[in-house]
Amino acid sequence: MLKNKPKKAKYLVGVDLGGTTIITVVTDIHGKVIASVKCLSEVKEGVKAVINRIVDTIYATVAKAKLQIDEVLTIGIGAPGPLSTKTGIIIDAPNLDGWVNVPLRDLVKKAFNQKIPVFLENDANAAAYGEFWIGTGKNVSTLIILTLGTGIGGGIIIDKKLYRGPDDTAGELGHISVFPNGPVCNCGNNGCLEAIASATGMVNRAVDALRLGRRSLIRDLAEHDLNRVTAKMIYQAVLKGDKLAKDIMQETGRYIGIAAASLVNIFNPEMIVFSGGMINAGDYLLDPIRDEVKKRAFPQPAKRVKILPAKLGENAGAIGAAGIAYCELKQD
Amino acid sequence: MLKNKPKKAKYLVGVDLGGTTIITVVTDIHGKVIASVKCLSEVKEGVKAVINRIVDTIYATVAKAKLQIDEVLTIGIGAPGPLSTKTGIIIDAPNLDGWVNVPLRDLVKKAFNQKIPVFLENDANAAAYGEFWIGTGKNVSTLIILTLGTGIGGGIIIDKKLYRGPDDTAGELGHISVFPNGPVCNCGNNGCLEAIASATGMVNRAVDALRLGRRSLIRDLAEHDLNRVTAKMIYQAVLKGDKLAKDIMQETGRYIGIAAASLVNIFNPEMIVFSGGMINAGDYLLDPIRDEVKKRAFPQPAKRVKILPAKLGENAGAIGAAGIAYCELKQD
Repeated sequence: MLKNKPKKAKYLVGVDLGGTTIITVVTDIHGKVIASVKCLSEVKEGVKAVINRIVDTIYATVAKAKLQIDEVLTIGIGAPGPLSTKTGIIIDAPNLDGWVNVPLRDLVKKAFNQKIPVFLENDANAAAYGEFWIGTGKNVSTLIILTLGTGIGGGIIIDKKLYRGPDDTAGELGHISVFPNGPVCNCGNNGCLEAIASATGMVNRAVDALRLGRRSLIRDLAEHDLNRVTAKMIYQAVLKGDKLAKDIMQETGRYIGIAAASLVNIFNPEMIVFSGGMINAGDYLLDPIRDEVKKRAFPQPAKRVKILPAKLGENAGAIGAAGIAYCELKQD
Repeated sequence: MLKNKPKKAKYLVGVDLGGTTIITVVTDIHGKVIASVKCLSEVKEGVKAVINRIVDTIYATVAKAKLQIDEVLTIGIGAPGPLSTKTGIIIDAPNLDGWVNVPLRDLVKKAFNQKIPVFLENDANAAAYGEFWIGTGKNVSTLIILTLGTGIGGGIIIDKKLYRGPDDTAGELGHISVFPNGPVCNCGNNGCLEAIASATGMVNRAVDALRLGRRSLIRDLAEHDLNRVTAKMIYQAVLKGDKLAKDIMQETGRYIGIAAASLVNIFNPEMIVFSGGMINAGDYLLDPIRDEVKKRAFPQPAKRVKILPAKLGENAGAIGAAGIAYCELKQD
């Protein structure tokens, strides 16, 4: 495919299609972002409207980068799954208003008259690849990425390659059983890391404690309406020295650390990178993770592994999608 | 190295050095066993004596196969770790009477006048590779092997290659935290799979139940001495329909299934192969593992994964060591 592209095509497009927003970037082949555009997804308008929006945004981002569309070497799209990277089809995405069997890759390819290779990737894997390609994990061969937000996603890089598994379902690291008799997870299992230590899980534990009458600034921040408690409020209360908030944050870190210690014993990774909204809590969250890994994992891999926050922020998925598409193109 | 070997060298030697026995095999390059010899390790006699015994046994096995030593292409040795596959040094092996920094690979190489390439591998990885090479996992690309015995060992094969991690410590699958507040494991962590569901963990749970006064045939098999209870007795009692033994075996399977479900969500493997003494219990043990994976893991990878017993029995480690040495030789 590389041979068929005009010589001047040397830029990459990455798209991160989420349930709420679409982030599009244009990068050079080293991942340097030249332009980015963020817009609402409006998935309720249906597949066709969303595809049109993706295509329009790609043109807009390319224009913003002061480039022509024929200077684009490849397009990578990160999207919620389950999906197939081989067929480029979104199989069944609850986060995209229930898209079922949407051949997203081929639809976008068609919109560019089949002239630009398009690659579809799971959004968590795309974000993980971004951090590996030009973020915290740059120059690292073997690393794990955990994205801590409403849910907990994961990505596995082994020998500088994304590990997807035979059905593209590998890396569901939020669904490691941490407390097998614990709360029910969205996936149906009990006691998954996600059920306990995602932003949602953390808020649930805070609300439980508040219901039991624990004093806390969180109560004031939520204007005494426990339905309004957010992970951000817990972090704000931590910063102001609130005891309950600190306890909840520490406990969250310890729970994540239990799963991280298992991952250290399984993979002997060089690095575990944490991304997502929750890492705004910084070392308040990362230190108990580090402590738990040191306490629980084998000494040699525990000494080896670096536990660090991600660098790329909300653009990680779009940048990673561009990088994966470039990587796939080179392998063709 | 291949070029320096005489043309007729086309057989492999594999050695499984354990704390109790040494198993040595001669195979062809397809893993077919031509001869095998088993002897006691007598590690207490010291490094030199053990190396001599390994060398003597290699000569004896080659003679038994009606071959000459110069027909041996390479020698693989599986040994307890931690060890380094890169340097061929056993770093610190509690199971070998405390061997520290023993350059096993080079000592064996020297004994054959540097004429035969030697490769050192972790014993759990060697056994895993054996099952992948010519056992249950033959023709499978991505699989996990769990060895259930006194401890629980693991091996990871990704894209037909053994995954070792940067420090050769990956695959410690017996040390996934299953019940983070559970019993203390030999590794120092709490609630590792090994602490709960190894033969030792299973016996401990049976003895606890017997101490509480539960009736069971196990008591008779142990001649009313609870210190004499073994995993084998539990299995024998299962076969005779004993209620407690069946409960304990089922519970063991469920605990293993919790970790297996996490591994299915992490790796999306094609297969999980169980080896080691405990698999004599067959489906009494494997069925609850399968049930738990079905209940806990994501539907797609849970449907994909086959959960099966190993085929090679006690020779797996020696055969796998031969196979790994051959694989490394080809990569040189």
